[in-house]
Amino acid sequence: MNFAVLASGNGSNLQAIINAIKKKKINANLKLVVSDKADATALVRAQKAKIATCTINPKNFDTREDFDRKILEHFKEFPIDFVVLAGYMRLLSPYFIQQYFHKIINIHPALLPSFKGTHGIREAFAYGVKVTGVTVHVVTEDMDAGPILAQEAVKITTKDTLESLTEKIHRVEHRLYPRVIDWFAKSLSRRQIGPGRL
Amino acid sequence: MNFAVLASGNGSNLQAIINAIKKKKINANLKLVVSDKADATALVRAQKAKIATCTINPKNFDTREDFDRKILEHFKEFPIDFVVLAGYMRLLSPYFIQQYFHKIINIHPALLPSFKGTHGIREAFAYGVKVTGVTVHVVTEDMDAGPILAQEAVKITTKDTLESLTEKIHRVEHRLYPRVIDWFAKSLSRRQIGPGRL
Repeated sequence: MNFAVLASGNGSNLQAIINAIKKKKINANLKLVVSDKADATALVRAQKAKIATCTINPKNFDTREDFDRKILEHFKEFPIDFVVLAGYMRLLSPYFIQQYFHKIINIHPALLPSFKGTHGIREAFAYGVKVTGVTVHVVTEDMDAGPILAQEAVKITTKDTLESLTEKIHRVEHRLYPRVIDWFAKSLSRRQIGPGRL
Repeated sequence: MNFAVLASGNGSNLQAIINAIKKKKINANLKLVVSDKADATALVRAQKAKIATCTINPKNFDTREDFDRKILEHFKEFPIDFVVLAGYMRLLSPYFIQQYFHKIINIHPALLPSFKGTHGIREAFAYGVKVTGVTVHVVTEDMDAGPILAQEAVKITTKDTLESLTEKIHRVEHRLYPRVIDWFAKSLSRRQIGPGRL
């Protein structure tokens, strides 16, 4: 199974994925890293690991779908079987999601359906929950609302700061995401995953 | 510290509280159990433990506040320092909540802010989350949205049914609620808890 990672930033989850592939903890081939930001550290991490990269500038496209069609063009070369979002800050178009129906997964730094959106860690901390966590889910057209594949709880103690919590969450992400990616690739290679099959 | 329990149903959390008091795991006095249902098993449990009970029939009152004023009248006899909700199915009036400002606590069978409302267990199970849990929180005028005192995570495995999950949640409730009640009574006896102090 071939997969692509879409990333916009630092790419620490991408690094965890690259490390897991090297240790054969993920039995699938990361063929391509796509970024919408030319200065994403994720690109440097990919290049160091000798993984193909491409940067696509949203400014060159009129619509979200045009942009996503460009990504899909790049995918054809390999071809890509499934897609892993890792700190990718753009919403995917319905077209893209349909092309990879139930073959796109994302990681969210909270226990969905709590604290959806781009500030999951900060909002959980501010709310004062005592338990938050990490969610890996299938990407559907409703943001952060697709079928949940895995979740892990993270306790917030009175000693935690936003920084210490962020670190704890990232540690869980880096352990959980590779495991789920490996499992997801196996599931896909065994059968076509369709709606309601997860 | 004297407290009252408000209950509408089976009262399994009330039973856990009664047991914890007997074992001196709660160092506060449960003086009164109030129910809005004459046939609540909670009343039988209280009577067996020789705790005063009263049933108040909502049909005899025009407004929610009138009903709650009747409860507060009963409280004066002891008097009651704080209030514990245990499967109490009525919303409290703003008047009642102001009278016991930050002195009313509730237990919710999910990890708030997820799955608010009366079907926390069922809705979490139907959603397909892999982690749910139990929340103890201070009761404010926004339902299930007051400051969180304690949370504990409960895993949902592929083997779980709604029944097995319900049992797991209840087990955690019966362990967590007495601990938090004891802690809450201690906090109250040390200092007046005001807004923003929790």
